[in-house]
Amino acid sequence: MSGLVQKYEINADMGEGFGRWKMGPDEELMPYLDTANIACGFHAGDPSIMMNTVRLCKKYGVKAGAHPGHQDLFGFGRRKIDVSPNDVYALVIYQVGALKSMLEAEGLELSHIKPHGELFFYMRRDETIMRAVLKACATFNVPVYAPHNPKQQEMCSELGIPFQSEIYIDTDYSSDGQLLPVAESNIATPELCYERARSAMLMDTGKDINGKEFSFGFGSKLFGICIHSDMPTVLDNIKGLRRAVDESNHIKKLPQSA
Amino acid sequence: MSGLVQKYEINADMGEGFGRWKMGPDEELMPYLDTANIACGFHAGDPSIMMNTVRLCKKYGVKAGAHPGHQDLFGFGRRKIDVSPNDVYALVIYQVGALKSMLEAEGLELSHIKPHGELFFYMRRDETIMRAVLKACATFNVPVYAPHNPKQQEMCSELGIPFQSEIYIDTDYSSDGQLLPVAESNIATPELCYERARSAMLMDTGKDINGKEFSFGFGSKLFGICIHSDMPTVLDNIKGLRRAVDESNHIKKLPQSA
Amino acid sequence: MSGLVQKYEINADMGEGFGRWKMGPDEELMPYLDTANIACGFHAGDPSIMMNTVRLCKKYGVKAGAHPGHQDLFGFGRRKIDVSPNDVYALVIYQVGALKSMLEAEGLELSHIKPHGELFFYMRRDETIMRAVLKACATFNVPVYAPHNPKQQEMCSELGIPFQSEIYIDTDYSSDGQLLPVAESNIATPELCYERARSAMLMDTGKDINGKEFSFGFGSKLFGICIHSDMPTVLDNIKGLRRAVDESNHIKKLPQSA
Amino acid sequence: MSGLVQKYEINADMGEGFGRWKMGPDEELMPYLDTANIACGFHAGDPSIMMNTVRLCKKYGVKAGAHPGHQDLFGFGRRKIDVSPNDVYALVIYQVGALKSMLEAEGLELSHIKPHGELFFYMRRDETIMRAVLKACATFNVPVYAPHNPKQQEMCSELGIPFQSEIYIDTDYSSDGQLLPVAESNIATPELCYERARSAMLMDTGKDINGKEFSFGFGSKLFGICIHSDMPTVLDNIKGLRRAVDESNHIKKLPQSA
Repeated sequence: MSGLVQKYEINADMGEGFGRWKMGPDEELMPYLDTANIACGFHAGDPSIMMNTVRLCKKYGVKAGAHPGHQDLFGFGRRKIDVSPNDVYALVIYQVGALKSMLEAEGLELSHIKPHGELFFYMRRDETIMRAVLKACATFNVPVYAPHNPKQQEMCSELGIPFQSEIYIDTDYSSDGQLLPVAESNIATPELCYERARSAMLMDTGKDINGKEFSFGFGSKLFGICIHSDMPTVLDNIKGLRRAVDESNHIKKLPQSA
Repeated sequence: MSGLVQKYEINADMGEGFGRWKMGPDEELMPYLDTANIACGFHAGDPSIMMNTVRLCKKYGVKAGAHPGHQDLFGFGRRKIDVSPNDVYALVIYQVGALKSMLEAEGLELSHIKPHGELFFYMRRDETIMRAVLKACATFNVPVYAPHNPKQQEMCSELGIPFQSEIYIDTDYSSDGQLLPVAESNIATPELCYERARSAMLMDTGKDINGKEFSFGFGSKLFGICIHSDMPTVLDNIKGLRRAVDESNHIKKLPQSA
Repeated sequence: MSGLVQKYEINADMGEGFGRWKMGPDEELMPYLDTANIACGFHAGDPSIMMNTVRLCKKYGVKAGAHPGHQDLFGFGRRKIDVSPNDVYALVIYQVGALKSMLEAEGLELSHIKPHGELFFYMRRDETIMRAVLKACATFNVPVYAPHNPKQQEMCSELGIPFQSEIYIDTDYSSDGQLLPVAESNIATPELCYERARSAMLMDTGKDINGKEFSFGFGSKLFGICIHSDMPTVLDNIKGLRRAVDESNHIKKLPQSA
Repeated sequence: MSGLVQKYEINADMGEGFGRWKMGPDEELMPYLDTANIACGFHAGDPSIMMNTVRLCKKYGVKAGAHPGHQDLFGFGRRKIDVSPNDVYALVIYQVGALKSMLEAEGLELSHIKPHGELFFYMRRDETIMRAVLKACATFNVPVYAPHNPKQQEMCSELGIPFQSEIYIDTDYSSDGQLLPVAESNIATPELCYERARSAMLMDTGKDINGKEFSFGFGSKLFGICIHSDMPTVLDNIKGLRRAVDESNHIKKLPQSA
């Protein structure tokens, strides 16, 4: 399964413009990424932007996954919208299928699926929606990316879907260890991104929004690290993160090669 | 290649509602069809309607192809819209890919691709657009359906795409043998559909809008026959057409089995 | 204020098609209506349908109000969608303003505003949204139509907006006297519509979904009566309703002229 | 008529973002403008952005007009799209009416109407469309802004609409004196904007894309000057333009006050 991480890997959301409108410095970020989550036209992106983003992935050797979201260009997929399980099943297959065919047209494989914004939070809140989304994902036979979530992990395993845990280092975690939306988080600095990533990779710990330390619980398992491509400071943050990840992959490798 | 017709086959556009809005009596028509052209969400259809239509195809054993169109819900994909070749390439892959993944989720194969409405007329008018659409189709390796068109046939052959000729029996042909849009055609009756289909299959001839006979030029080659599912008289017309096609397939079969 | 009812009046939602898609027999219903609630392009309707509906109102002497809704063509404005108070304020002014200018182009006045579907239910659930919608309505200086709702009535009065109570006779009321969505109601018959309307107008009473009688609490005040134009039985139902309303307006008139 | 220019005036397109997507430095530009053309949600803008832009106009004392366009977010209203005269009439009233009600909610008046992008070019190409757009504009009784165009001026006069000529100083003119689309023009500098504006105001002349001088033919009549808010260099260009306009208004005033 190509989509599970083989080392610590950095992923970011890509292709989140629409028509003439831009969002995030995609091409500048690509060289620093291992994996891209490509918007599929519902919360952002359009077919031409998707195609271009697929080609950027090819150019920079970045793995390409689907980043499906709510049908909500106005709200960038971040508003709560009622969707029936049947509708959500269909709209995930629709979006991922569209991207997958673009990847195939360029000789690439679909690496993974990562639900966007409110679709992700909806899954976390509502098990029926979680099941519908995961059943849609299961038809593609690639890993689903998400922050640590025992319920989702269990359901993935039941449906035969690989689950790839990931963390965020530029948004905050609540006091009960849940990832907070961008709008409720503080702005991150490159140093903070470096420290957070390093702490997670080497000590398996993070700090919540109140500064209290918590354990991610990864043990020795690898995980993905996501960075928000639409933060104004992302081109700085990514350098701090890349450095931390490269150092940790180097350190981790030593014992393995011993 | 499963998508090329193996006998005279009837196809119709299916799944052309949107949200709560209906268009055409899809389920009533399905038992009479050999092949369905499924709208892919740009001129009509939405992911849930597409999924339902895929399941109807499965239920009735009807081959399922993609019916991509202009991004134009308001105009039902029948208005002229400037699209760049890059944009049209991307939007065809997007739509067909979305449908293909739905078919695979139900264990079905993509049968063919048939461009809808103005996208079809755009190809006929503009070779650059024709090439961009066909290059997109080529990535799926299924036949493209269209009325007789030497230019398109040649380009398909150059790109390695099977081309499936088809005729219409409920809209008119201009005096230079070109298919006319629905809005410029007369309303067809079941008798007319029967006669037109029979004449095309047995004598390779049709009549233009002025009543002048012309030859389709199929010789002994099989072809598809399309009927408009959104005509008010379609549930009657389909019976005339089905009868003609069944008779001709029976007649044609005799010499073959001899 | 032209928009408040001067007698018992029938209103219905009109213009709820989109592009080529139809919804409800608008022109057949118009002769039976006193007031039309015209969809404004967000949950249904498009500028051309709106213009046509305005002209139908003019032709049949029907008062024309705005029927703004969520931006949700796919869900027909019936899905829950998170909207900020600022956004909802802007989208109501946008929709009503668009219709008002069409009415003025035809020499008609905006009669009233009636929030559609989930926008109505959202107001009922969330006072911040109710206030934002009503502040938007207040800029037009016309009555707001809604089923009996003390909270809304109070807020309207505080904002200086006339409030027009209305009842429904083809959907059900819950056991606590709240109007139920179409999907949770039984299909109404013309007889039921006649009886319900008559009972409300002459005895100020209705029956909830369990058959238990309740009082509307109108006393001697006039109110509007709404019928759903998209029910399959509406062309029959409207006749039962029209008869009840005409009879009651006749009866009520007698004492006044005494 | 408040909308006709009373001195040389600078206008620019404002509010051309959508949802989370930005376009142009609106608030930074406002202090330099006399007049804003506000996008109305079809090619760009959404109700919330429109409302914010209206408030910016109020804050900076800038006149606010409507900038209606094709329904084409993907193409930013710059693609050719077939629209029937009835449809275009309705969509112009819809957009302008929506904005007008927002202005009224803030105690402002609609200053003028300026068709955007391809809607403007469509009018120039097709007299039926020009007439339909202008008839829609006529229902608002405000001036229509456009570059010099005898045909349009004549039709405006026939329909009783004031016509306000304007020039562009950051895009090029073709050798036959027609304004060229942004994509076919060179990038302008502040010096060029200053020189072009000054030449037009003081000598009534411009230079076409080949450097050949031509006369605008304004004689002593005032006109508007438009600058593209979405050019990367606009915050510099506007300063050159503002200086030229202030100087010319000062010079022109002298004889008048003599």
